[in-house]
Amino acid sequence: MNVKKEILKMAEAAKRASFSLGSASSLEKDRAITLMAKNIKKGASRILGANKKDIKAAEKKKMKPAFIDRLTLNARRIDGMISSLEEVRKLDDVVGQIIQARRRPNGLLIAKMRVPIGVIGIIYEARPNVTSDCIGLCLKSANSVILKGGSEALYSNIAIFECLRSALAKTSIPVDAIQLVTSKERSAVRELLKLNAYIDLIMPRGGESLIKEVTENSRIPVIKHYKGVCHVYVDEYADLNMAHKIAMNAKVQRPAVCNAMETLLVHEDVAARFLPAIGRDLSNAGVEIRGCRKTKVILKGIKSATEDDWYTEYLDLILAVKVVSSLDEAIAHINKYGSNHSDAIVSENYANAVSFLGRVDSACVYVNASTRFTDGYEFGMGAEIGISTDKLHARGPMGLEELTTYKYVILGNGQVRA
Amino acid sequence: MNVKKEILKMAEAAKRASFSLGSASSLEKDRAITLMAKNIKKGASRILGANKKDIKAAEKKKMKPAFIDRLTLNARRIDGMISSLEEVRKLDDVVGQIIQARRRPNGLLIAKMRVPIGVIGIIYEARPNVTSDCIGLCLKSANSVILKGGSEALYSNIAIFECLRSALAKTSIPVDAIQLVTSKERSAVRELLKLNAYIDLIMPRGGESLIKEVTENSRIPVIKHYKGVCHVYVDEYADLNMAHKIAMNAKVQRPAVCNAMETLLVHEDVAARFLPAIGRDLSNAGVEIRGCRKTKVILKGIKSATEDDWYTEYLDLILAVKVVSSLDEAIAHINKYGSNHSDAIVSENYANAVSFLGRVDSACVYVNASTRFTDGYEFGMGAEIGISTDKLHARGPMGLEELTTYKYVILGNGQVRA
Repeated sequence: MNVKKEILKMAEAAKRASFSLGSASSLEKDRAITLMAKNIKKGASRILGANKKDIKAAEKKKMKPAFIDRLTLNARRIDGMISSLEEVRKLDDVVGQIIQARRRPNGLLIAKMRVPIGVIGIIYEARPNVTSDCIGLCLKSANSVILKGGSEALYSNIAIFECLRSALAKTSIPVDAIQLVTSKERSAVRELLKLNAYIDLIMPRGGESLIKEVTENSRIPVIKHYKGVCHVYVDEYADLNMAHKIAMNAKVQRPAVCNAMETLLVHEDVAARFLPAIGRDLSNAGVEIRGCRKTKVILKGIKSATEDDWYTEYLDLILAVKVVSSLDEAIAHINKYGSNHSDAIVSENYANAVSFLGRVDSACVYVNASTRFTDGYEFGMGAEIGISTDKLHARGPMGLEELTTYKYVILGNGQVRA
Repeated sequence: MNVKKEILKMAEAAKRASFSLGSASSLEKDRAITLMAKNIKKGASRILGANKKDIKAAEKKKMKPAFIDRLTLNARRIDGMISSLEEVRKLDDVVGQIIQARRRPNGLLIAKMRVPIGVIGIIYEARPNVTSDCIGLCLKSANSVILKGGSEALYSNIAIFECLRSALAKTSIPVDAIQLVTSKERSAVRELLKLNAYIDLIMPRGGESLIKEVTENSRIPVIKHYKGVCHVYVDEYADLNMAHKIAMNAKVQRPAVCNAMETLLVHEDVAARFLPAIGRDLSNAGVEIRGCRKTKVILKGIKSATEDDWYTEYLDLILAVKVVSSLDEAIAHINKYGSNHSDAIVSENYANAVSFLGRVDSACVYVNASTRFTDGYEFGMGAEIGISTDKLHARGPMGLEELTTYKYVILGNGQVRA
């Protein structure tokens, strides 16, 4: 069967399954997730064996260590997959919740009810745990899901997927509700992106080129999980001690993630007091600093930041630093170079804090806290499928609620319009 | 200046303006809308003069009477534009509302705040009142708006737009927050759809070909306001008197709108009792009936419905009728041929009503009421910019809330992540 037909068949089956899944009880969905967690446990050695094959091939292709790290599974990471499934199972079911209800003067009861989106396509790179995380969240929110992972993780993904699918087969939920694209052909993604008759939402998770390809070619609505060029702005009225702790945390606590700080903005009135100490501590933590002209006057011997640096998500121990002459300049910089992800101001000044909150156009805007908190668990949502950098439907961490839409349910007793 | 540059310049200006508009006070936005309504009143004769030009050109081009009717303005329709603006002004401002807030164990206060989407592009056909309706709603929700109306209404749109823009010029809100594309070149829409760096949302309102062109070519997220192939299903347990009234209302009260019924589904056990009376009343109301084989056994001499009829939005005094043998068949028919807009069941049976509500995949699902209620005013939202037939972000009538997104505002006192 050619790719086009294969993908079409998958999408049709996923759509059909989504109708039964949509009316599955919470109990049945939870039972499926429990069985999935058990099957991952039972299948651990098979999954690790498949993962070894992927790793060998990646090493042969001379992939970077960071890539191989993301690809690698071990007992601890498999336990992580299992506990993620169990955590998702424990969350309240959001499907069928009434968000809002109004009794109209004519007696009509109009209620807004949370319902699944339908069929979700997720396109991701070579992190095999994404396979089970996404299936758990989509199943709990009663969405069919079609997964297309990076071909470098294909053996791992197939092994994980088989565990999950065989668990689902023991329930009344149709197994077609979860689908894995196993074709290595590049055209598979393009074919997927055309099927707006069957797929309701596409979520690309990965690097710039993947996101770009998906956005430019999709006829299906897309919610992007794009890069995090996050900023911490140290205001002239900052508690500099607090600013120091927040900036260090935002940069070095886990530099390879999207909510880590990439650019530090410092008001010129405090730059001479603030930069030397943080410069020293960052260097001691192994951070390479790239500064603007004014930063370089204070921190001697550092690299110059170029225009490109301001746009860059390093995901690494590198930091761009810019001294700004006003709050306005800081906000303008963030709105121009940032990625609308997470940005923080450190300030004791009420007006500046309020102005920053209102005018920075990002999903998550912080006063006096580290950008590292942008995360479904930290936000109290229980789990997340990613962090949306888009503005429509869902912004910031996406949990179960964000994986649903709503329908209006209208109850009457014979009302007609006059 | 060529079209490409012109559109780009507009979009850049609209984006810039959106930042000031986003922090404009409710008072200032309301003052702008009041001035707009006054200017429309003052400019009425100029608007009607411009509209005459459009009508003449349309008549010369031998456009259909329904088209010319939609294009035509008169004193009553201008009053309608004015009162729409005034109604929107009176609505509560939704920008800045806190939708949800949580205090986390570490002391962080995480609040979800309603904020404008940014820049909205609206592509519509030849109904000039849409110009002022959309500008009122976008201004109230603090979104910049770029309008591209049908070229057949260009003189009317320019005249209306000039009234609104000169009103805005008297306020502190930048006039660039509202933009009208006046180019008649077909490439203007294509250029608009590329500018995802400046425009956050595209809303096409119009016929199938317009929606298709926009969906297939947009790099910007789209919310479609597509056709309404609405159904009324008369269950075997229906109160047939009620069903008669609802079906008549849904079909004939205003057949040219998207929430009118296009297909009537009748359970076979009640078809012989239900169809003769409604068939007679529909015929008396001038409705042409196209029936399935079983319908034609009961209603002699009517036309046959073809496969195409089930997909068709007539917007006219034509009705497709199908006799079904079960609730399941009715639901399957609606999910296959419908447009996910508005569908109703008439039934006194609890289980059937619940099943219909749960399984019909439409924005608005009714029990025992006419589909004609799908409307922002009728739903108690005050006003609407259209009715979304999509699943993401907004579904069904879109009012002010649906014209916003949210941001997370996080207030800390030095929290860092462990």
